[in-house]
Amino acid sequence: MSQDKKKTNIILFSGDYDKAMAAYIIANGAAAYDHGVTIFHTFWGLNALRKDELVPVKKGFLEKIFGKMMPRGADKMALSKMNFAGMGPQMIKHVIKKHNALTLPQLIKMAQEQEIKLVACTMTMDLLGLQEEELLDDIVYAGVAAYLADAEEGQVNLFI
Amino acid sequence: MSQDKKKTNIILFSGDYDKAMAAYIIANGAAAYDHGVTIFHTFWGLNALRKDELVPVKKGFLEKIFGKMMPRGADKMALSKMNFAGMGPQMIKHVIKKHNALTLPQLIKMAQEQEIKLVACTMTMDLLGLQEEELLDDIVYAGVAAYLADAEEGQVNLFI
Amino acid sequence: MSQDKKKTNIILFSGDYDKAMAAYIIANGAAAYDHGVTIFHTFWGLNALRKDELVPVKKGFLEKIFGKMMPRGADKMALSKMNFAGMGPQMIKHVIKKHNALTLPQLIKMAQEQEIKLVACTMTMDLLGLQEEELLDDIVYAGVAAYLADAEEGQVNLFI
Repeated sequence: MSQDKKKTNIILFSGDYDKAMAAYIIANGAAAYDHGVTIFHTFWGLNALRKDELVPVKKGFLEKIFGKMMPRGADKMALSKMNFAGMGPQMIKHVIKKHNALTLPQLIKMAQEQEIKLVACTMTMDLLGLQEEELLDDIVYAGVAAYLADAEEGQVNLFI
Repeated sequence: MSQDKKKTNIILFSGDYDKAMAAYIIANGAAAYDHGVTIFHTFWGLNALRKDELVPVKKGFLEKIFGKMMPRGADKMALSKMNFAGMGPQMIKHVIKKHNALTLPQLIKMAQEQEIKLVACTMTMDLLGLQEEELLDDIVYAGVAAYLADAEEGQVNLFI
Repeated sequence: MSQDKKKTNIILFSGDYDKAMAAYIIANGAAAYDHGVTIFHTFWGLNALRKDELVPVKKGFLEKIFGKMMPRGADKMALSKMNFAGMGPQMIKHVIKKHNALTLPQLIKMAQEQEIKLVACTMTMDLLGLQEEELLDDIVYAGVAAYLADAEEGQVNLFI
């Protein structure tokens, strides 16, 4: 990434489908706008990076509960508002299709094609018991120091 | 807006009364501080810009449901915490009045008087089926590219 | 604080344990990275600064209700996701201990030791009826103008 490129750094903390959509729409827009873009996934935002199949890994008891209760991948995430016991995401996906917009998994795929750096926060992976095998390919594993090194050079820094 | 003015750009994603209050208090403060200020309303944040009367417009089925379920205007928004089945906003409005602070509709009016640029995100208007006739007057209609053009020049960029 | 120090300014609006953890982890990281760091606590984020004992102060009726319903101090805050009727924070605290990470009260203590400026928003203290006696020692009391003066000089500005 060249030195004089503008930079957008987004922390995705939220595990909500709609907030992750917003994060990836801004990120893809910024990449199209020729920014160097990083999305740093932490806490519930890590779920956007989970593979949707079950990956057999050894875990402790609490880590198993977290793993079972949290959505496995972007497509299974809930809405922050009007989730309507799970109907909300279907409604949103329906209007997304109707208006030829992109779903969250499509936005994530586009981000990878645009070489947006997708980072998984190793500290919260430890806390929630998520392992590298459970996440998508081509993810960067890093901590808060790496985030700060990016952010202090950034024009647009957001916490979502 | 002059080139050398400092700029504050707030994305208002949230449809919560208290979060919208925070956004508008910061925005009005920054305008008083002589910043050029933009609030970019997206997703549930668009509800802060809805007129409180019912505007008859033609809509699809899902768009009608969204329209009915979402609060019509700033005054009807709920709290992010302690909403108490709708009692919370009344409590907040009561203490706002008692302490001579401003309610959300008053803060929005002040923002318009201070020439803060209020933007409605056209992409999420499409998704949620909101139409220009349903929103307040003097709103700017734009997308993520316009946001990024503002944000990359901004000193203070926040996602609320 | 020297003029050429980089600055990180975090608004902590949220009263959730996990979001406050994220705020304090970033803040402590930035301080270790030699940034001048400010956390501006507003709305529910003020609860992170409450002492955990009951402080007898005179309050109005609504302010008493707010005081009773809001968590008294960082250790009593709930999770934004998977709170499981109060079990979630215990699970998180358990995995924090297991992985030798820091709890929220420990992160706040570390922030004070690193001379991170902890600000309480006086306007929302008024609204929620919180008084200085109820908050931790060495807190700075200020409003939105003070936040903006910090933020317009900041490299990393986040709203959490």
